[in-house]
Amino acid sequence: MARPCKVILVALLVAAMASPLVLAYDPSPLQDFCVADKASNVFVNGQACKDPAMVSAGDFAFSGLQNAGNTANPFGSKVTLVDVKAVPGLNTLGVAMARLDLAAGGLNPPHTHPRATEILTVVEGEMFVGYIDTNGTLFAKVLHKGDVFVFPKGLVHFEFNFGDCPAFGIAGLSSQNPGLVRVADSLFGASPAITNEVLAKAFGIDAATVQRIKAQFSTKK
Amino acid sequence: MARPCKVILVALLVAAMASPLVLAYDPSPLQDFCVADKASNVFVNGQACKDPAMVSAGDFAFSGLQNAGNTANPFGSKVTLVDVKAVPGLNTLGVAMARLDLAAGGLNPPHTHPRATEILTVVEGEMFVGYIDTNGTLFAKVLHKGDVFVFPKGLVHFEFNFGDCPAFGIAGLSSQNPGLVRVADSLFGASPAITNEVLAKAFGIDAATVQRIKAQFSTKK
Amino acid sequence: MARPCKVILVALLVAAMASPLVLAYDPSPLQDFCVADKASNVFVNGQACKDPAMVSAGDFAFSGLQNAGNTANPFGSKVTLVDVKAVPGLNTLGVAMARLDLAAGGLNPPHTHPRATEILTVVEGEMFVGYIDTNGTLFAKVLHKGDVFVFPKGLVHFEFNFGDCPAFGIAGLSSQNPGLVRVADSLFGASPAITNEVLAKAFGIDAATVQRIKAQFSTKK
Amino acid sequence: MARPCKVILVALLVAAMASPLVLAYDPSPLQDFCVADKASNVFVNGQACKDPAMVSAGDFAFSGLQNAGNTANPFGSKVTLVDVKAVPGLNTLGVAMARLDLAAGGLNPPHTHPRATEILTVVEGEMFVGYIDTNGTLFAKVLHKGDVFVFPKGLVHFEFNFGDCPAFGIAGLSSQNPGLVRVADSLFGASPAITNEVLAKAFGIDAATVQRIKAQFSTKK
Amino acid sequence: MARPCKVILVALLVAAMASPLVLAYDPSPLQDFCVADKASNVFVNGQACKDPAMVSAGDFAFSGLQNAGNTANPFGSKVTLVDVKAVPGLNTLGVAMARLDLAAGGLNPPHTHPRATEILTVVEGEMFVGYIDTNGTLFAKVLHKGDVFVFPKGLVHFEFNFGDCPAFGIAGLSSQNPGLVRVADSLFGASPAITNEVLAKAFGIDAATVQRIKAQFSTKK
Amino acid sequence: MARPCKVILVALLVAAMASPLVLAYDPSPLQDFCVADKASNVFVNGQACKDPAMVSAGDFAFSGLQNAGNTANPFGSKVTLVDVKAVPGLNTLGVAMARLDLAAGGLNPPHTHPRATEILTVVEGEMFVGYIDTNGTLFAKVLHKGDVFVFPKGLVHFEFNFGDCPAFGIAGLSSQNPGLVRVADSLFGASPAITNEVLAKAFGIDAATVQRIKAQFSTKK
Repeated sequence: MARPCKVILVALLVAAMASPLVLAYDPSPLQDFCVADKASNVFVNGQACKDPAMVSAGDFAFSGLQNAGNTANPFGSKVTLVDVKAVPGLNTLGVAMARLDLAAGGLNPPHTHPRATEILTVVEGEMFVGYIDTNGTLFAKVLHKGDVFVFPKGLVHFEFNFGDCPAFGIAGLSSQNPGLVRVADSLFGASPAITNEVLAKAFGIDAATVQRIKAQFSTKK
Repeated sequence: MARPCKVILVALLVAAMASPLVLAYDPSPLQDFCVADKASNVFVNGQACKDPAMVSAGDFAFSGLQNAGNTANPFGSKVTLVDVKAVPGLNTLGVAMARLDLAAGGLNPPHTHPRATEILTVVEGEMFVGYIDTNGTLFAKVLHKGDVFVFPKGLVHFEFNFGDCPAFGIAGLSSQNPGLVRVADSLFGASPAITNEVLAKAFGIDAATVQRIKAQFSTKK
Repeated sequence: MARPCKVILVALLVAAMASPLVLAYDPSPLQDFCVADKASNVFVNGQACKDPAMVSAGDFAFSGLQNAGNTANPFGSKVTLVDVKAVPGLNTLGVAMARLDLAAGGLNPPHTHPRATEILTVVEGEMFVGYIDTNGTLFAKVLHKGDVFVFPKGLVHFEFNFGDCPAFGIAGLSSQNPGLVRVADSLFGASPAITNEVLAKAFGIDAATVQRIKAQFSTKK
Repeated sequence: MARPCKVILVALLVAAMASPLVLAYDPSPLQDFCVADKASNVFVNGQACKDPAMVSAGDFAFSGLQNAGNTANPFGSKVTLVDVKAVPGLNTLGVAMARLDLAAGGLNPPHTHPRATEILTVVEGEMFVGYIDTNGTLFAKVLHKGDVFVFPKGLVHFEFNFGDCPAFGIAGLSSQNPGLVRVADSLFGASPAITNEVLAKAFGIDAATVQRIKAQFSTKK
Repeated sequence: MARPCKVILVALLVAAMASPLVLAYDPSPLQDFCVADKASNVFVNGQACKDPAMVSAGDFAFSGLQNAGNTANPFGSKVTLVDVKAVPGLNTLGVAMARLDLAAGGLNPPHTHPRATEILTVVEGEMFVGYIDTNGTLFAKVLHKGDVFVFPKGLVHFEFNFGDCPAFGIAGLSSQNPGLVRVADSLFGASPAITNEVLAKAFGIDAATVQRIKAQFSTKK
Repeated sequence: MARPCKVILVALLVAAMASPLVLAYDPSPLQDFCVADKASNVFVNGQACKDPAMVSAGDFAFSGLQNAGNTANPFGSKVTLVDVKAVPGLNTLGVAMARLDLAAGGLNPPHTHPRATEILTVVEGEMFVGYIDTNGTLFAKVLHKGDVFVFPKGLVHFEFNFGDCPAFGIAGLSSQNPGLVRVADSLFGASPAITNEVLAKAFGIDAATVQRIKAQFSTKK
């Protein structure tokens, strides 16, 4: 609060120019490409593909990562995901991208990607990031511009902008469809709801506290 | 409490006899077997192996799954894991086993296995089980004896014994080292601790509540 | 015969209660789940899937593993398989289960699973089990209740109940469709039949012996 | 016998000239190559590698496939395997080769490769070949010069030279270490021996017949 | 020219008799086989399959590898590929074969297989073969009859017949659809054409030279 | 030349701030992480690992991607690679990053990554990018700030800055060690050299032209 956001003008310029990127990888492709066919009604592991004769360069392209995501929400954060839904040419190639925007004080709340390792670089601002391994050890670090950090596949991690200025970064996720499980939302905002008894016991809290937390996640949906 | 635990004697008999089982699978083996060498100081993806000439049938065996786990803890649950640490012959073969014991009212709290799908069968008693997919949908079911349920790889799931009698089951996990992330413990019991500010924002609770939850997990360790 | 089957009553109780389990794993899922669509006429590696919007908890569930298989056959054995045909939700998740019942003196004859490692636990009774590696070495062991044994992927193995009482176990197989090749049946009961000349030379027996063996397998079908 | 072996001279010429080839594939290499280090005492999935700075073209080469294998044995057949043991450069690259020689009347007895699909081409002579799928169906064919046949991974198959002249072929196996399980030898020639009771029941033969078959395989070793 | 082609008659005999072979491997099959259905209009990773009930032995067979390829072209070389397009039964099994014919002085020009390691054996004649690793080191060797050489996945390699007589070999490629990128053709014969500016800068040549090279590749198409 | 480089000042600001990122994926990790041990003299597929007890957050971090690479070379381009050599924590996780800098008129010459798909985003400036599939079809596009393009695994591709101002981008490569084969350099700059005869025939040029091209690549080394 006390420290003024001195670099705000430059930061906005950069936010309008820079270009985030996120990737991931799955099983091997069995041909040069197998572009997802959004019109298909056949469901398979991954996605059914377009006739290769109908594929063009546009199937491998995406535009718009230079734009900041809208962080006007309770978490003060926004993830813009560029996965196989956004770029059909990513099908079978096992990569996805994401741009992470954090308002001042914003948090990308603790989450996992069930199908991907993530690698994040900070393009603007500063972030406190970390992941917890299966032994309960926290590996955390403050990242500045140009720094990179890796979140191994399937582990809980978070990014927090403790500064006074917006921050953004680019994350790679090693799957064409990495999946996102926001831990608190998954448990307290599930539909149908998980019974209070289970959540109360899991977190060692009373039913009233469970209800209060649930209320926030149903609001957010 | 009101409903008497009528099947208790039989249940105890069964608990002394039955034999749980859990498995999982990883990358392909490149030889018949590659038994983990516990004495090796070489670290690789998976584990370094014993000289094949020194391998015997005992390397593929384990004993003791007929014994109930000790559920005298705040969750009233215990998982006995039979992974590559317990059976060195599982190395490169990508499977693990677990026995899950739940006291009356016991909960195996919400968790993920970052490297495994799990399949659970109820051997004795009843359980309410469920998983939440990445869209926030809960898939849940009450399981009776002989019922089976599948928890897809990397998704949050839980098992709850809502009955008056102990229950136990056998779970398979598709990795020689599936990994376990108990969600609440991972966040509130991490070492070093995750700052209150992050957890408060993630769950929409105040710092005092964060502290109360943290206190329980540090007690449990 | 001489030794009375003292534990028969308890064994029957257990047979009515216990719950077997078998699993296996294949290539990675590219989404949370891809439930096999039994109505589809599209064939792919694995199976085509249902519209995810039509999936429910029942797609991941199975009932009935508490029931003993019928061992009234020449081998005195029965395998109840819980694979992707039984649980469509197992599609792409690469696991399967099986319950193995052996009558007194019953044999699960030498066989391989071309696509799976198997892990077996004895729930009731005793079994003599073993596998032969590609060097011709037999790794064998007598298993008692609660014991576990691993049969590496693709190797010939068998389970024999040398006792006077029924036995049963639970086996995990590391594929949603592990496949079963009973060696003797595969060779002497193939359809169309393998010529006597080939089988006689393979086993060093005369054509008459080949015919006698063949006769039994055609009877069994 | 009656039919003279008219092409024998040409066949011998060819046997002295032609060049067999077999391959196979496993998990992906993580570098250009990882040449097996025969001097290493570290065991891993696959093999530990030489220092890349010490690798030369010779590590990827093999000589001698133009020579016929010695078929002076009871089966009248010989397989010359070119796997990672023969060509250290095949390590991590997942391929192997084999030359199959069959004397007149020779049989490559029913066998499986636990880690490989095989593709066979007949270079000289004729062969009756087949595999049995897991439903017990025999897929068989007479192959002439220049014909190719595929034996899917893990299934039992055989090659039989029903003609009066030697035959040979080249087989590819999809693993750097495909493994070979000769079914009859594996069961009747295992060390230590499988008990007569198990084998008698498996094949529906008496103990005396089991002994007679066992005797042949111990002779062959 | 001076050295007479003494073995030409024998070579022709062999060319009419010998049988080449090439293989490769991809992700694991999830059933015994999944034979490509050429009539299907569903596109997936790999190929959609025929109804298993309609599969016959012919789906796994190919004929004609005893015939030399036509080398009457500017390179003096011809590759006859036996991949999943030629043998539908190879689908999901990840192998392919090729016969390589080189006229005297013929060259299989520098190329890569994006999805396969290749293993080559010389059946007739002599070849100078080599590959370049990612450090720019050339691993090369003169191969004689019966010699074998391995070209690791994705690396540039070539085969050159420096002798006075035709040569041929058999190559294995570790994919059902290995793919072929002839480097010069890919760059100078692309359609639409790559701009002269890019190619001139890449090779350090002037635009006129680029045009002259381009002209040859458009002629060859 | 005529068109002034109007955005140069802003571009320099951005170059000092923005943060590139590239990733890729290989076979599955069998534990949370397996950080490459640079001091190990054991070579395996991938890399041997540090004792997990010695791992810290720094093993997953990298700094410096905000700095432009030095493009003062004949191609006017520079790739800064962040692979497992730069970040040991990437071992077994299968991702890598790269920053691509192109001077005005600079070219990242045609190349392949044998072990990775690449995804590129333009952070500053404009690029003409393209890849050629195995049928010889060029898929190309002009990319502006914030645009993304995908280059499928193993295919030849290039990036060209046709503008008057420097450009840079971030690329993801789906392997911890994607490998780089610059096509022209690989062929004309190999060590030991590929004979002129082979290169002349491959490109349809005379030996003198081959020598002129070779001279440039040996200069560049």
